[in-house]
Amino acid sequence: MSARAQAQGSKAVTTPFRVGLLGHGTVGSAFTRLLDERAGEIERFNGRRPVISGVLTRTRGHFEEILAGADLLVELMGGVEPAREHLLAAMRSGKDVVSANKLLLSLHGEELFETARAHGVRLRFEAAVAGAVPVVRVLEESLSATPIERIHGIVNGTTNFILTEMTAGATYAEALAEAQRRGFAEADPSDDVSGRDAAAKMAILARLAFGRPMHLDEVRYEGIEHLHGDDLEYARELGLGLKLIGTAERRDGGLSVRVHPAFLYAGHPLAAVVGPFNAVTVEAEAITEITLSGPGAGGRQTASAVLGDVVSVMTGGARPPAPPLELGLVEDVPNAYYLHLDVADRPGVLAAVTGVLGDEEVSIKSVVQRGMGESARLVMVTHPVLESRLRAALARVAEFEFVRAAPRMIRVIEEEWV
Amino acid sequence: MSARAQAQGSKAVTTPFRVGLLGHGTVGSAFTRLLDERAGEIERFNGRRPVISGVLTRTRGHFEEILAGADLLVELMGGVEPAREHLLAAMRSGKDVVSANKLLLSLHGEELFETARAHGVRLRFEAAVAGAVPVVRVLEESLSATPIERIHGIVNGTTNFILTEMTAGATYAEALAEAQRRGFAEADPSDDVSGRDAAAKMAILARLAFGRPMHLDEVRYEGIEHLHGDDLEYARELGLGLKLIGTAERRDGGLSVRVHPAFLYAGHPLAAVVGPFNAVTVEAEAITEITLSGPGAGGRQTASAVLGDVVSVMTGGARPPAPPLELGLVEDVPNAYYLHLDVADRPGVLAAVTGVLGDEEVSIKSVVQRGMGESARLVMVTHPVLESRLRAALARVAEFEFVRAAPRMIRVIEEEWV
Repeated sequence: MSARAQAQGSKAVTTPFRVGLLGHGTVGSAFTRLLDERAGEIERFNGRRPVISGVLTRTRGHFEEILAGADLLVELMGGVEPAREHLLAAMRSGKDVVSANKLLLSLHGEELFETARAHGVRLRFEAAVAGAVPVVRVLEESLSATPIERIHGIVNGTTNFILTEMTAGATYAEALAEAQRRGFAEADPSDDVSGRDAAAKMAILARLAFGRPMHLDEVRYEGIEHLHGDDLEYARELGLGLKLIGTAERRDGGLSVRVHPAFLYAGHPLAAVVGPFNAVTVEAEAITEITLSGPGAGGRQTASAVLGDVVSVMTGGARPPAPPLELGLVEDVPNAYYLHLDVADRPGVLAAVTGVLGDEEVSIKSVVQRGMGESARLVMVTHPVLESRLRAALARVAEFEFVRAAPRMIRVIEEEWV
Repeated sequence: MSARAQAQGSKAVTTPFRVGLLGHGTVGSAFTRLLDERAGEIERFNGRRPVISGVLTRTRGHFEEILAGADLLVELMGGVEPAREHLLAAMRSGKDVVSANKLLLSLHGEELFETARAHGVRLRFEAAVAGAVPVVRVLEESLSATPIERIHGIVNGTTNFILTEMTAGATYAEALAEAQRRGFAEADPSDDVSGRDAAAKMAILARLAFGRPMHLDEVRYEGIEHLHGDDLEYARELGLGLKLIGTAERRDGGLSVRVHPAFLYAGHPLAAVVGPFNAVTVEAEAITEITLSGPGAGGRQTASAVLGDVVSVMTGGARPPAPPLELGLVEDVPNAYYLHLDVADRPGVLAAVTGVLGDEEVSIKSVVQRGMGESARLVMVTHPVLESRLRAALARVAEFEFVRAAPRMIRVIEEEWV
């Protein structure tokens, strides 16, 4: 008889812990399988065996019955309604809930948190942000006593995969097609490539880290659809990697939350994150900086995070969410920038461009100029400058008759953490 | 009036949460300061304000009084006694405890866990393993429902700093002196450089990840004192980085826990971890692999982990440790190896060496031979082979008269995770 069987055999029969499941797609099926596999081990640790007591899909099950027969509801339907309504109803009836629904949390998070607090129930959502990477728990618990200064995250595996392929020489279209072929991108990839999915996750992380309610519409985001192969090529010359980076940080007494493509110096902890992976770096005075990384979404990874949440509710961990803080939003923040200009190849061009940048107090860190016959490409990296100032300078540069295409700009994340 | 003040003002006065502190050295002082700084915020989140209700040092305080006046004891004395005795007494009287004492946990962990279980109290020890990197909580909670296959860790910042310096060209003595100058190494560095400190931490991680009681004496460890500059130089030629790696993994139905210098391929998630940092990679089928990294020990980082533990006890998270599992220890495991031989530079040497290796079923992946006048250096990387087989082969190789110094070997960690 194995040690495990002995441990189980010596226990009295206990009441099962009943899990009602809303939604039974890819993640729902993976969750059901994982829970079946792990039920014995969970019982050994926690004294109660989790069982699926009911499943709601579009075609079967009745919500009220499933709610009445469950100790906890797991919502894996996705979308806003009826997921929102069901979670609110469950919490109002005093039930703990687990959700993997990033869109819902980024649009109606505060209503859900408020309801959880009012009814003294737990609302867990580890799987909503970075798949199996336990960043929600680390922010909520390990770092709950630490005043956080900044979070940088690669929180969308699809775009990180596409950028990795582009860095290896693929075009955007080729990289996207490969991501779709390998199941890392949907047939309609717009939520991923526009940066909207990453923005939803950054809204959730910002709420956890800084206490301020964040709505998806308050996050500024840019996607990766408009990146050029040139940008990646020049970046290699400058020793930079290109990622879609979400940032949430304290700035000037307020909070800035944004998502955009950004170049990273080779030493940055996120620079080494390649393929469909996620990673989040948390900076705070007391801890310097910690980084969590791992696979992003994926049915089994997400299911694993959901099951971790179920176990944390079973073991009495996790309290209702903290009440919100007031904190202003800061829109205009300083960044270093990479600039790309297509210009006529003739004397005086560099002087004219740098003259305008100097007027606007944009300070240049490095320049690469390359002749291409009649035209030239001018690639510059600036020192940190307010976005509004840089845009003003570029508007003036764009008016020069020798500029042959709209100037391009991509943010650069400095190695401040070293 | 700020949002925070409003939130605090609206609350009734609550009973403080009394923390008794054992030990007031570097970490103890940092903990006291951090708790003072964060008490208001913790109260806002959790409803009770933590206060230091008593401090025991070598010259002041009485343990029994401090225990009686506290809701929780924090042990930051280090060493085995009286830390062990005090923690046991506190738990027997029904008090929750927090400790940062890796030595104690690696020598008497099971006694402490057993006592916590018997008395239904919490025993938290996040700071005992990787400073502010929350690997204990992630293993205990996020991954409690995940069957883990392997952990690789850089869990000693001192040796990682020394190896980083050596990779940049310093000798071992120079690197150690620099570590001491910068406060990363003690005057007597033997616990760090021998691998014993890392072994204690791996014993704790193995217990958490695999459920099997682990005593420090059961962990096989090697340190970094005997590494040569040559090894680092050749490793660069082969595209490998050198780290002190702790490993805990399931093997052949049992568990192997060990610490040794190891070469990593450039793509390994631990290869990029430089300076006095810690990082742990957890592999499991359901999650693929996640990595947590950040600064290792340091007064403020450790204090931050301790405070996180205090908060988790205040919020009712964390249960008593799970009962132990039976699992055999596996001593002889396969590894790829780097081999370094100083030999006479003459025909037939390579054939003789590879002949013996072939006889012993050691398969060669790459070879670099370099003449140095009369002698030559032969550097090889093998495919994975049982340690016992490799040692048998090397014993035979060492007997050749053309071998001029004892053969050296360092393990190589393959990119299995890709």
